[in-house]
Amino acid sequence: SENLEIVVKAFSSSFVIPDFRNFCQLIDEIYTECKANTEGSVAHYIPQLARSNPEHWGVSLCTVDGQRHSLGDVNVPFTLQSCSKPLNYALALGMTGTDRIHKFVGMEPSGRYFNELVLDYNNKPHNPMINAGAIMTAALIKPTLSAADRFDYVFSLYKRLVAGEYLGFNNAVFLSERECADRNFALAYFMRENKCFPEGTRLHETLDFYFQLCSLEITAESGALIAATLANGGINPLTGDPVLTVEAVRNTLTLMHSCGMYNYSGQFAFKVGLPSKSGVSGCVLVVVPNTMGICLWSPPLDSNGNSCRSVQFCMELVSRFKFHNFDNLRGYISTKTDP
Amino acid sequence: SENLEIVVKAFSSSFVIPDFRNFCQLIDEIYTECKANTEGSVAHYIPQLARSNPEHWGVSLCTVDGQRHSLGDVNVPFTLQSCSKPLNYALALGMTGTDRIHKFVGMEPSGRYFNELVLDYNNKPHNPMINAGAIMTAALIKPTLSAADRFDYVFSLYKRLVAGEYLGFNNAVFLSERECADRNFALAYFMRENKCFPEGTRLHETLDFYFQLCSLEITAESGALIAATLANGGINPLTGDPVLTVEAVRNTLTLMHSCGMYNYSGQFAFKVGLPSKSGVSGCVLVVVPNTMGICLWSPPLDSNGNSCRSVQFCMELVSRFKFHNFDNLRGYISTKTDP
Amino acid sequence: SENLEIVVKAFSSSFVIPDFRNFCQLIDEIYTECKANTEGSVAHYIPQLARSNPEHWGVSLCTVDGQRHSLGDVNVPFTLQSCSKPLNYALALGMTGTDRIHKFVGMEPSGRYFNELVLDYNNKPHNPMINAGAIMTAALIKPTLSAADRFDYVFSLYKRLVAGEYLGFNNAVFLSERECADRNFALAYFMRENKCFPEGTRLHETLDFYFQLCSLEITAESGALIAATLANGGINPLTGDPVLTVEAVRNTLTLMHSCGMYNYSGQFAFKVGLPSKSGVSGCVLVVVPNTMGICLWSPPLDSNGNSCRSVQFCMELVSRFKFHNFDNLRGYISTKTDP
Amino acid sequence: SENLEIVVKAFSSSFVIPDFRNFCQLIDEIYTECKANTEGSVAHYIPQLARSNPEHWGVSLCTVDGQRHSLGDVNVPFTLQSCSKPLNYALALGMTGTDRIHKFVGMEPSGRYFNELVLDYNNKPHNPMINAGAIMTAALIKPTLSAADRFDYVFSLYKRLVAGEYLGFNNAVFLSERECADRNFALAYFMRENKCFPEGTRLHETLDFYFQLCSLEITAESGALIAATLANGGINPLTGDPVLTVEAVRNTLTLMHSCGMYNYSGQFAFKVGLPSKSGVSGCVLVVVPNTMGICLWSPPLDSNGNSCRSVQFCMELVSRFKFHNFDNLRGYISTKTDP
Repeated sequence: SENLEIVVKAFSSSFVIPDFRNFCQLIDEIYTECKANTEGSVAHYIPQLARSNPEHWGVSLCTVDGQRHSLGDVNVPFTLQSCSKPLNYALALGMTGTDRIHKFVGMEPSGRYFNELVLDYNNKPHNPMINAGAIMTAALIKPTLSAADRFDYVFSLYKRLVAGEYLGFNNAVFLSERECADRNFALAYFMRENKCFPEGTRLHETLDFYFQLCSLEITAESGALIAATLANGGINPLTGDPVLTVEAVRNTLTLMHSCGMYNYSGQFAFKVGLPSKSGVSGCVLVVVPNTMGICLWSPPLDSNGNSCRSVQFCMELVSRFKFHNFDNLRGYISTKTDP
Repeated sequence: SENLEIVVKAFSSSFVIPDFRNFCQLIDEIYTECKANTEGSVAHYIPQLARSNPEHWGVSLCTVDGQRHSLGDVNVPFTLQSCSKPLNYALALGMTGTDRIHKFVGMEPSGRYFNELVLDYNNKPHNPMINAGAIMTAALIKPTLSAADRFDYVFSLYKRLVAGEYLGFNNAVFLSERECADRNFALAYFMRENKCFPEGTRLHETLDFYFQLCSLEITAESGALIAATLANGGINPLTGDPVLTVEAVRNTLTLMHSCGMYNYSGQFAFKVGLPSKSGVSGCVLVVVPNTMGICLWSPPLDSNGNSCRSVQFCMELVSRFKFHNFDNLRGYISTKTDP
Repeated sequence: SENLEIVVKAFSSSFVIPDFRNFCQLIDEIYTECKANTEGSVAHYIPQLARSNPEHWGVSLCTVDGQRHSLGDVNVPFTLQSCSKPLNYALALGMTGTDRIHKFVGMEPSGRYFNELVLDYNNKPHNPMINAGAIMTAALIKPTLSAADRFDYVFSLYKRLVAGEYLGFNNAVFLSERECADRNFALAYFMRENKCFPEGTRLHETLDFYFQLCSLEITAESGALIAATLANGGINPLTGDPVLTVEAVRNTLTLMHSCGMYNYSGQFAFKVGLPSKSGVSGCVLVVVPNTMGICLWSPPLDSNGNSCRSVQFCMELVSRFKFHNFDNLRGYISTKTDP
Repeated sequence: SENLEIVVKAFSSSFVIPDFRNFCQLIDEIYTECKANTEGSVAHYIPQLARSNPEHWGVSLCTVDGQRHSLGDVNVPFTLQSCSKPLNYALALGMTGTDRIHKFVGMEPSGRYFNELVLDYNNKPHNPMINAGAIMTAALIKPTLSAADRFDYVFSLYKRLVAGEYLGFNNAVFLSERECADRNFALAYFMRENKCFPEGTRLHETLDFYFQLCSLEITAESGALIAATLANGGINPLTGDPVLTVEAVRNTLTLMHSCGMYNYSGQFAFKVGLPSKSGVSGCVLVVVPNTMGICLWSPPLDSNGNSCRSVQFCMELVSRFKFHNFDNLRGYISTKTDP
């Protein structure tokens, strides 16, 4: 029944990307081009990531009207890592509202490294996309529930984001993350010292929760559904399920746009101009608002911590299609396609 | 003849804001609401600004198809100050290209104060919207011309941005700026020490040029034409003159979006989501891409250096109209109007 | 038998301060002067310190040949707090040698707050007098012993420093310190992340040990013996017991001289010029090399965290006696006494 | 007649170093040892210094009772550079008093690089030994005199420090210094912006004056007389001329002790423990209070900017003689000589 809407649209030729077949051919070309890129090296701060296969390269996309296309290693599970940050933020916004969340975390790019030991001018973490802000976001999600219920609750929301498709939990990664998390412990203690947390926050439990959220597993294919849900204003395009509020999505896209690609965020906003979030597992969630969500995955990272092939893919994408935030400017007579 | 296009459109009912009369009534309401706001105080670092009249409040807008609406003190000249930064950047891009400009200045929000003595990880000023980056941008504009020719050249480009309407030069402000510019001198020497400038840059002449560009005068009415030219992809909507390249406009809007409102930029992107730039004279240039340019002017500033009435105006604007960058998300069933 | 040396010296008139009676009268005058000082407020970051009596004011001194003089509240126990830092450093030097210790901790004044989250240019804590360096020093003391044996071992060394006089342990303070130690936990995790610690360091155990050393109790009277042992090159002047090596003392005095009084260290070295160390309990250990040790104690602290009465006492002391490091300059024709 | 005092002392065997001949033999040994050291490279930021001969190595000393000993290139002129900082500070103290000077400059080690763009917690330059503080000190010397009279005045004071022996001015170095002084201009403008300077300070004239003082020339032999004057409490040991007040000397030695050797100052205080000041010309002035002054000169510098041979010389010196600030501790049974 969830496919009914698609069928109807197909017949009425009203798909957001009318010539989907041709569009996919161009995507395939970009995929192949990027496959040749052997730059970067896999994250090595925990053994589980260090063992990643640098050959892996998967691309999956899903339009807001549910058309899908996948290439390469799109069914291999990997952990979300920092890609969970915008999602937790969006979920937290839905639970407690923008004002409450931003009483505890800012909305400014930090201009610093993602894990810097620094707070903003109001003594808050700069934004939910850096570690300090993401730990804070985790602290704000159902803090009164037991650890188990808390995890269950968020897992079920993520499950709706992926439309019931693949979602896992990698316990070995979780244990490793916790073991190697000196900086995150330092950040958490630093924030507690500065009275950043809401009263009653249990520090170690919050950090555990945060590491668990980083250790959730998706595939490129299920990840594309997450990105597509964001592109579609919070409504899962396959199920029609309104998982996220539209206000939560608006806020999340704004911050992904300005802070989603670590220290490369400014340049990425400039050159690509699409709300995106990358993680050290080599994943990048890319949102083309009102059009489609894309999940890119390839473990080798550049010096900023972004997947090399994925960044290249995004560059190629906006060089061919009018996807950049300010690409549809009047008078933009270009060779770019509007798919 | 420049109005011919408008007439034609009017007849064909194809204006970007079809019911312009009704739209203007709502703008008038917001104007009146903000007029009551008596917060903030005028800039006082130079006597010429300290003497500004805090009562002044002007709003002027121009759509990409040339419809105009103005309220209040829209014919009083004021200096551009930091509002000249995105314009100089856009002009420089047109002259020498994105790559050359960004060899010397970055594209990342700095996370610091606009005049901080700091360079980015590549030893460049963070972006063209902070003082260091704006001085650098000035250095890149026609560096081989004589001081007089250089000024003339840029003045003539600005004149095209305002479609021949009001553009002046306030020499008293220029002299005061130069007198009180210890931080800018410190920035310039700091950059020269770090070999940031292109070879052959004359430091004091560059600073003079920079102060002169800050001392250019517009009115709210002529300023709206500048903003409208940006909204229209670089083509002046009154004259059809392609003053800026569309690539220059895209880059400029991206940076105005992320870095245009001093330390409030992140919050402004989040809450308003429109590319804007403010200056200490109390001016804010606001761009609604493909729709209209707005020039707001009111001297009293908040602690971030942004005009109090103007920021309030922007907030009200996006609360009534679908102008936020991510406002047109599918599923966004709101009470907001799409004018 | 430990007093035999004193008797002998007394008969031979060779005491380091020949006219001790007169000297003590001048000390009494300074004591009374400072008693009137009611500036400052007691430390309040843990309840146990916040309950300190601001009236308490004790001064005790002991010369290198064992003459003693005490005034005021010299038998009230208080915790050592940061005054334990130079002692642990001196003990650690004796156990493992200068080179080994300084492989892990620097010897530079930091120019920052005592608890700043920052490492020096070699990725080491700046020096053993700031928190990061003191935690590191604790980590280097008998790391292979059990927690109990480790504490016992250091306690017995401290007991020799006080010549068997009062030394206690305040368990309530220890528990409070640990409870309120967010910054110290942040520092420790930050250092572990930077691989500052020797391999095998157990973080929480090290912090516990550090808090325990801060929670050792002395009285002004027993504290004077510690300072006197430093003044006497490491040999306890009452017992003749060589508790510290002379090299350890030399190093310790050098760092107390440059880094002992928190952010006031430079000014203190300039104005007082005596190796000293203060703690938030209101204690200051002052060393007049080759002459005497002084323990000052008064809980109210100034904005730098130094006991107000104690700093005043030191100022008065060097204004009357030739005790400043560079006071004995040739040609120094002054009204100052050489006791 | 200035030698009369020496003759008298010689006959009375009361020289501060009784067996001067033997002492000099040991000095010669150290000199020869250090001559073999070919580490480091000459300063290259201005051509005049870059052309220095790395072979040059001169040592000259003068005791407080006027005994002298010189080895190597002791008659080759070189510029004082940063070695002028403590001297200008001492002279300024004599002219205007400690309180006035320290209203404008601090007395804390900065923990930063000598030319860092940073002020202390009171918005003053940290101390007179770093560039910002030295520029400030220059500003405080006879600010109402004409440029020529100001230079003349200080030149005549320096001339008394060298007992009429060699003192020159290297105009080529001055012009080069001024040419390459971007950081110093940045520092000066930054301080002026922060209203650090006394009212009426003329910025460019002050900088010129500062560069001129850096460009004064001495030889190792005349430099030894400067150091000896400091060792002797401000009285030139050859002429008996009280050039500096004893209070000025005390303050100067305190700051040379804590801040004289750039970023190596803390380690130098720890390992050598003698008030010293180095300059990029390869000069180090070393003061053994009440005993002697030493001038060391050898152009090759280590990464901290200190002359390699000179630092080695100091290390050797304190390993053989009881010259370290805390070397005369009771109980120090060592193999070290007390000359």
